[in-house]
Amino acid sequence: MIVQRAKGTRDFLPKEKRLRQWIVGTIKDTFECCGFQPYETPILERYETVSLKYGGGKEILKEVFKLKDQGNRELALRYEFTTSLARMIAMNPQLRMPLKMFQIGPVFRDGPIEAGRVREFWQCDADIIGTANVKADAEILATFSLAYKRLGLKVKIKINNRKLLTSILDYVGINKEEKEDAVLAIDKLYKIGVDGVKEELSKIGIEKEKINKLTYLISIKGNNLKKLKILRKTLGDVEGVNELESLLSLCKFYNVKLELDISLARGLIYYTGTIFEAVLEKGPICSVGGGGRYDNLVGLFGRECPAVGFSIGLDRLYDALISKKQIGSKTVFVISIGNTFKDTIKFAMQLREENVSCDVELTERKLSKSLEYASDYKYVCFIGEKERKLKKVKIRDMQTGKEKFMSYKKAVEVLKKI
Amino acid sequence: MIVQRAKGTRDFLPKEKRLRQWIVGTIKDTFECCGFQPYETPILERYETVSLKYGGGKEILKEVFKLKDQGNRELALRYEFTTSLARMIAMNPQLRMPLKMFQIGPVFRDGPIEAGRVREFWQCDADIIGTANVKADAEILATFSLAYKRLGLKVKIKINNRKLLTSILDYVGINKEEKEDAVLAIDKLYKIGVDGVKEELSKIGIEKEKINKLTYLISIKGNNLKKLKILRKTLGDVEGVNELESLLSLCKFYNVKLELDISLARGLIYYTGTIFEAVLEKGPICSVGGGGRYDNLVGLFGRECPAVGFSIGLDRLYDALISKKQIGSKTVFVISIGNTFKDTIKFAMQLREENVSCDVELTERKLSKSLEYASDYKYVCFIGEKERKLKKVKIRDMQTGKEKFMSYKKAVEVLKKI
Repeated sequence: MIVQRAKGTRDFLPKEKRLRQWIVGTIKDTFECCGFQPYETPILERYETVSLKYGGGKEILKEVFKLKDQGNRELALRYEFTTSLARMIAMNPQLRMPLKMFQIGPVFRDGPIEAGRVREFWQCDADIIGTANVKADAEILATFSLAYKRLGLKVKIKINNRKLLTSILDYVGINKEEKEDAVLAIDKLYKIGVDGVKEELSKIGIEKEKINKLTYLISIKGNNLKKLKILRKTLGDVEGVNELESLLSLCKFYNVKLELDISLARGLIYYTGTIFEAVLEKGPICSVGGGGRYDNLVGLFGRECPAVGFSIGLDRLYDALISKKQIGSKTVFVISIGNTFKDTIKFAMQLREENVSCDVELTERKLSKSLEYASDYKYVCFIGEKERKLKKVKIRDMQTGKEKFMSYKKAVEVLKKI
Repeated sequence: MIVQRAKGTRDFLPKEKRLRQWIVGTIKDTFECCGFQPYETPILERYETVSLKYGGGKEILKEVFKLKDQGNRELALRYEFTTSLARMIAMNPQLRMPLKMFQIGPVFRDGPIEAGRVREFWQCDADIIGTANVKADAEILATFSLAYKRLGLKVKIKINNRKLLTSILDYVGINKEEKEDAVLAIDKLYKIGVDGVKEELSKIGIEKEKINKLTYLISIKGNNLKKLKILRKTLGDVEGVNELESLLSLCKFYNVKLELDISLARGLIYYTGTIFEAVLEKGPICSVGGGGRYDNLVGLFGRECPAVGFSIGLDRLYDALISKKQIGSKTVFVISIGNTFKDTIKFAMQLREENVSCDVELTERKLSKSLEYASDYKYVCFIGEKERKLKKVKIRDMQTGKEKFMSYKKAVEVLKKI
């Protein structure tokens, strides 16, 4: 038989999984610290739920993993969490609004395997459902920003507004049927440059004059205030500019730094207002999370309510951190020498009762082999005949090589502190 | 559209998910405390891997969720973890033995929906791979037992040995082709009683005399020592009895209580020696976990090695604990009264910096509505005009109704202690 994984999936060995646990734990703690509550929806959803047309459009449907149960019901593996969250909220009318909710877990996309893309990956989502207040957008951005800070990652958070994009397209005079494609072209500014965007827009069939107007507006230089000033002067008193202004001033109180990027559009068509994305400050341009306001999605399941949220991609964070950060866990290894396994167990169980992580030699191999195996532990404890008689244990610090001889009680105290 | 979940799946709202997080956290900490290392394998596996014939037999194949990727490759949702673990170990020859590994996450079975059975559920597995030493069986049982203890659940751990069952069947004279069915019938002793087992055995075509001999042996009464004594007298010096004796005496040192149940067989055909199962002491008979030794499974992927492990079913534990245990998390809610949102944020972010979980009023609703929403928080903090001017905050203990007025710094100190 062929021994391999399914295409586009990964295994994580202990060293790697420990880092993933640490990242997930840090993000979870940040969410809870900011008042978000955990929830869990299943990985298996009805195909009708996942494929809901506003859930993301044609592009997404192609990448949904479909399957059937024994009753021939059409199912799908969840593509993202938001649609499932909206379904759950519609099914639970007793929930009091606004809701601050989070979920961390795997999602599935049957897409092409490029650098860094896999078919099964983890997302960490936080959402505020039930208020259209811009304070919720600011709270979301503050939580998002705090999560990266706690992970020790330097990111640039770019922000924009879908209503602003619509106003720009209207101002330039882009036809209704060209709008969606125009937004997709604009979104590529950082990848393909101004000339690339111009070429794409011209392919759609937009006139040169309009293209120039459009690319001028999406690439205005300067700080956020300057950009907003020019936009207001050009577009007048439009909602998109007003919302960005309120949000940026609220975020100052939160001490969250944002960069207004007028070309930012984000793929999912369900966004309705604020949109944002985090990219790593160092290295190649790499999106490590994003989100925005989606005021119409939850309503599709029968319970109208505005919402805003974000999603952090665990796998990209993991790839960014794996070479930098190591999470150790191997602390104590206990070796029995001679006929002392009974005593070894007694000591090990005393450590475990006090929540000191410890492993025990379970084979009958030579001491030299045991020590080789235990080389990445911090401490190795020995119980031989002498120790057994005196009811003591010998502890070796594996870094310094120093050994100490002490009672079980004293040893537990010492090892508890590490 | 129909707003519902896929059949056999569950949602977990915050109160429920907090309990699940607590159970998972407790089990994970126990595993790490006993020296097990975390790993992660994907949910999507190649169908060939999941359906490996020794992975569980025909019964299992019927319940595997099958699907295809865009390249028309046959995939499956993992049915359990052990097959994936064996595949991962075969693919990583650098791993040093013995390995103590654990994984916690969802598995999928497209089976009938009976009371308590769902199609997507979580398992918590710990395994020791690479040693046939009975010490590993004892270490597994000690970890298993410690997990239930830390969860506050009283369970009875029943133990048996596959080799003993084989010796019994040989002694009684059951034909080779009847053995598998006979074992399945024996396994039902606690569900259907001696008479029920007799009826099932007779249906298979086993003679009455043999049936009587068999049911006598599997229902021997008395303590473990007495049972072993009778078995040894009847069967002679057989491996199954020897292994059980060694294991039971080791487990005494670990202070793990076991009940020898000669009728215990467990479904999965890959077990080769020790087998065990935990059932709740109170309430209807309900298996909340089990495992055993499977010395041949890992070798099927090309890397021969003995192994022993167990699996705890999260969903059954959750069902057993949901009415008893509540995990609170809503601690602090901060309300801004008047034009003081800026100050509210400043205070909330100070709390969050100190890792005090806090939520903030994000809507413009009336104070009475805010307080209604905040009724399940421990403390509510108010910042109005007076507080803003004095740079102070008013804290209300929601249980006693008592209010105190203090500086931000003092408030952070007080709330940090809860």
